[in-house]
Amino acid sequence: MSEEKYDLVILGGGTAGYVSAIRASQLGKKVALVEQSLLGGTCLHKGCIPTKALLKSAEVMRTISNATDYGVDVEDFKLNYSRIKSRKNDIVKQMFNGVTQLMEHNKIDVFNGTGRILGPSIFSPQSGTISVEFENGESELIPNNNVLIATGSQPMPLPFLPFDHDIVLSSDDILKLEMLPKSLVIIGGGVIGLEFASLLTDFGVKVTVIEAGERILPTESKSIANTLKNDLTQRGVKFHENTQLSESQISIDDSGINILLNDETTHFEKCLVAIGRKPNTDDIGLNNTKIQLSAANHIIVNEFQQTEDKHIYAAGDCIGKLQLAHVGSKEGTTAIEHMFDEAPLPLNYDKMPKCVYTQPEIASIGQNLEQAKSNNVNAKAFKVPFKAIGKAVIENVTNQNGFCEIVINQDNDTVLGLNMIGPHVTELINEVSLMQFMNGSTLELGLTTHAHPSLSEVLMELGLKVENRSIHV
Amino acid sequence: MSEEKYDLVILGGGTAGYVSAIRASQLGKKVALVEQSLLGGTCLHKGCIPTKALLKSAEVMRTISNATDYGVDVEDFKLNYSRIKSRKNDIVKQMFNGVTQLMEHNKIDVFNGTGRILGPSIFSPQSGTISVEFENGESELIPNNNVLIATGSQPMPLPFLPFDHDIVLSSDDILKLEMLPKSLVIIGGGVIGLEFASLLTDFGVKVTVIEAGERILPTESKSIANTLKNDLTQRGVKFHENTQLSESQISIDDSGINILLNDETTHFEKCLVAIGRKPNTDDIGLNNTKIQLSAANHIIVNEFQQTEDKHIYAAGDCIGKLQLAHVGSKEGTTAIEHMFDEAPLPLNYDKMPKCVYTQPEIASIGQNLEQAKSNNVNAKAFKVPFKAIGKAVIENVTNQNGFCEIVINQDNDTVLGLNMIGPHVTELINEVSLMQFMNGSTLELGLTTHAHPSLSEVLMELGLKVENRSIHV
Repeated sequence: MSEEKYDLVILGGGTAGYVSAIRASQLGKKVALVEQSLLGGTCLHKGCIPTKALLKSAEVMRTISNATDYGVDVEDFKLNYSRIKSRKNDIVKQMFNGVTQLMEHNKIDVFNGTGRILGPSIFSPQSGTISVEFENGESELIPNNNVLIATGSQPMPLPFLPFDHDIVLSSDDILKLEMLPKSLVIIGGGVIGLEFASLLTDFGVKVTVIEAGERILPTESKSIANTLKNDLTQRGVKFHENTQLSESQISIDDSGINILLNDETTHFEKCLVAIGRKPNTDDIGLNNTKIQLSAANHIIVNEFQQTEDKHIYAAGDCIGKLQLAHVGSKEGTTAIEHMFDEAPLPLNYDKMPKCVYTQPEIASIGQNLEQAKSNNVNAKAFKVPFKAIGKAVIENVTNQNGFCEIVINQDNDTVLGLNMIGPHVTELINEVSLMQFMNGSTLELGLTTHAHPSLSEVLMELGLKVENRSIHV
Repeated sequence: MSEEKYDLVILGGGTAGYVSAIRASQLGKKVALVEQSLLGGTCLHKGCIPTKALLKSAEVMRTISNATDYGVDVEDFKLNYSRIKSRKNDIVKQMFNGVTQLMEHNKIDVFNGTGRILGPSIFSPQSGTISVEFENGESELIPNNNVLIATGSQPMPLPFLPFDHDIVLSSDDILKLEMLPKSLVIIGGGVIGLEFASLLTDFGVKVTVIEAGERILPTESKSIANTLKNDLTQRGVKFHENTQLSESQISIDDSGINILLNDETTHFEKCLVAIGRKPNTDDIGLNNTKIQLSAANHIIVNEFQQTEDKHIYAAGDCIGKLQLAHVGSKEGTTAIEHMFDEAPLPLNYDKMPKCVYTQPEIASIGQNLEQAKSNNVNAKAFKVPFKAIGKAVIENVTNQNGFCEIVINQDNDTVLGLNMIGPHVTELINEVSLMQFMNGSTLELGLTTHAHPSLSEVLMELGLKVENRSIHV
């Protein structure tokens, strides 16, 4: 048993976990962090960072493909996938070293093993003591006053098509491929599937997306989903929406996977299953606690991330809210501040930015018009196309279908949400996040001087448009 | 004489002028706009837009030069300057058509001629009637109740080295070149000179910058100027700071210009003089008014852009404040709203974003630490390097010298300014502009959830750093 009692033990060293550890350390607390694999978790090793590194290479590939438009004639060019992978790995390594140093710098004790929560015992009248099992078979108990569960999530398999890590791949597996496949079918038209569709079509892979639901990207507006679909279609991606697969349509052989679609069997070298993620809540000792799980096995927490066991909190993908790294960080710091009586604001999911890093990029915050109307809100939308914005014309004179839309509650003039598709919107959304956090008005957005030329001028014009005084639209 | 009396006549159809015209039209006013040349003015035809179009091509050129880093092997590539120019011209044309349509849509009468202000006469007891002289020699009088002067500025020549538009070029001239020179000397290390230095070195031109002052970019912090200088130096630009040229050092022949520098004569094919801009305030009839000019011939206005003749306002470069398009627009709309009793906020130049579109980009707002200290403010600066931000590492893993710095007044914890150099900072600055407009605090900036991964996370970390609770630095 660890000799000292920790103020806090965190299960899971992903984004939610390590950020929370730092925050608790800043508050002068003694913190232990238990991580089974690598600090940085899914975001750093299997999610945000490696995919965005690949997407950057895809952007370069696309820029070169279109270089003539910008006045540079390119003789011949070739993708070097091993170089792309090693660049991605270098980036992950640099950031992994950064996180490791942050743990040292903040004097956080990192236990590299599998943590489980124990029930009450003769050593501890309350549940929550953490047992860590190390790879060498040894184990250690970590007594503590508080626990934060941040164990994350993992790719969910299709029941009739388990991951074989060779032909049927998860998003984890696909990042490990040594060579690009010639063809790929992606099952699932959500954010993860579409980011891979975007980058892999730019890398020259023949990509087909199969979506069981009525359309891709159900969390975004129809108009945004359509704009993305049209762009990807032009770049060679095939889509089958409203297509629920069954076991009988699928066969796997040595060379790949065959899928019967519209009375025709198509062969694909690889298959990426991206139908969602399931929480890592098995086998972490929750049965030793009063913690409640949802039907989908997510940990149920209150608005300050507290579980039914009041000294045990949870944050990040394992609670199954937005499953975004920055939301996990915010949930984690909210938990820490509540745990140590720092009176945090409860987290408002309607004010969290959400990004899709496809090309074109998508970003949104709060509700779109369809969502607001289905909530019976008296909502109205205002739209500004990017082609009205000089910098957007400069960025890409040929493809100008992007736009930015704001949704207003007409009963009280508040901003219900904003969604956009176009160049660099995953940066632009942060200004909107600040506005929403500060309860800013559309007039304040519109009266703020925006640098000219900049893409962000679209937000200013939109703010002014709501006030019926936009200049350029 | 025009039969109707206008509520407003605007002299100059550049950004300040046409935006003001639209704003006045929105307020139901009858507006005439007099433009000597093309609607859109310097910004659209000779400034912001064409240079940013060229800079975009330079970015593509640079991306291709470094493509191997991103995993794309490029056989051979060549700049196609005539294509770059035609792309630039297409962009300008598209936006010019846009402005023209905006004038029609807003029912603004455009007079294509040279406008001058007349003094009091038997027709009008107050000065301000506008006489327009057309190219065909005819002229027309436009009676009105209010005038806005937005005549802009033009490149300033060196007294001993007048523009010959062949070897000695202004920024207007250089945009018209049919071919790129092999070598170029730029006299003046300010924003305009450095933007051309950045794009032309990327285009393969041998660039030398001569700056009379102690260092380049005197309006930005030393540290930012140095970071830019180091980057440009690595890309081949030569710098001579603290170098006041005199007539005897310079000779011009058929093949270019020879300049004696450090006891050595260097030959350059072309010379760009970019030492500043002078206001277009001659020959517009100011002698018929009570308007006062500064020593540098800028029109003197009050905080609502009003001149000594209370019904005559001025905005944009001709008043000589920040000489940025978006500032001109804001000055113009402030003038209009004051003129027509709409109670505008006076413009606060300390809250205007300022951008330099070099590579790397620079953006700032308010005062830097050196400026604050020279104003005897109890200032303190906090800095976050971009290399602490995941998205910045992804954008450019090799060049990570950028940073973001905030300056705080320690007496009252207000934000005095923020300055940064690095990827896409000309977008990031707009979030800061919103924060400053809304009088946001560093805590609000730090607590705002920023999308991960995004470059804007640098602002969140900076906000948290001031509060002594940053996570990643």
